[in-house]
Amino acid sequence: MIILGIDPGTAITGFGVVEARGNSYKPITYHCLRTGPELPLASRLKHLYQGISDIITQYKPDCMAVEELFFNKNARTALAVGHARGIALLAGANAGLPVAEYTPLQVKQAVTGYGKADKQQVQFMVKTLLGLQEIPKPDDVADALAIAICHAHWSSSLGGRLK
Amino acid sequence: MIILGIDPGTAITGFGVVEARGNSYKPITYHCLRTGPELPLASRLKHLYQGISDIITQYKPDCMAVEELFFNKNARTALAVGHARGIALLAGANAGLPVAEYTPLQVKQAVTGYGKADKQQVQFMVKTLLGLQEIPKPDDVADALAIAICHAHWSSSLGGRLK
Repeated sequence: MIILGIDPGTAITGFGVVEARGNSYKPITYHCLRTGPELPLASRLKHLYQGISDIITQYKPDCMAVEELFFNKNARTALAVGHARGIALLAGANAGLPVAEYTPLQVKQAVTGYGKADKQQVQFMVKTLLGLQEIPKPDDVADALAIAICHAHWSSSLGGRLK
Repeated sequence: MIILGIDPGTAITGFGVVEARGNSYKPITYHCLRTGPELPLASRLKHLYQGISDIITQYKPDCMAVEELFFNKNARTALAVGHARGIALLAGANAGLPVAEYTPLQVKQAVTGYGKADKQQVQFMVKTLLGLQEIPKPDDVADALAIAICHAHWSSSLGGRLK
């Protein structure tokens, strides 16, 4: 199963494509999409949509996974994340992909075995599970890979069923 | 100039298409798009994107206007609005429309002449300016029409330039 994990943001959207076979994970590609603050918001979202759609076309994932957010930041930040997150979900749905959402607790649990793990621990395990030389940067990329691994984990423990 | 005003929401997105000639406004169509809470979020956003794109195809507006939000609601509400708002902006950008954003103060100022006007006053003026028999329901539809009128107002006072 090939999984596209997305950590959405208007300025930086991290993505990671991971192939999962049983308990082993292989990184296919991982990077981030950036849009410049000098562009109008609608144009930035258009670039983002096109970028995610291109990744789907190129790597043909079987499904997409995005983090559910329950955060304590202010409403302005939440609105901005919402813009980008809506675009990511739409790109998946328009490509006909099943789209799964996971809470941060589920992601941490799947990747480190501990729902309250800190960011460093999650990043260390992403590096380890994918056999990478270094922790992917920026954080958004490591987070996107963590979400993809999380989806592989929960799908496999549910007998391969998508959430 | 034909303007598409949008009041985005995941459950209800209000829209209004208004033709502006000088200081007179003619309503072309106004209604709302609804998506059911029983659907996954990605599917709801897909329906919303398709719905807005269909309106653009059918009524061929020259531009789109969406409200900027600076609200005091909680982060969860802001995230949900952000999802739908991102979709609306994307639908406009993908259709090649200029997309303008206005603050609630600009909308109230344009429609009632008073930046602190209450909702009832804005709705009353939407009905009056468009020559309608009744205030459009639900509120999202009246709000979408107010945003369209606002765009006509500011474009005209800027010599027809889009924001």
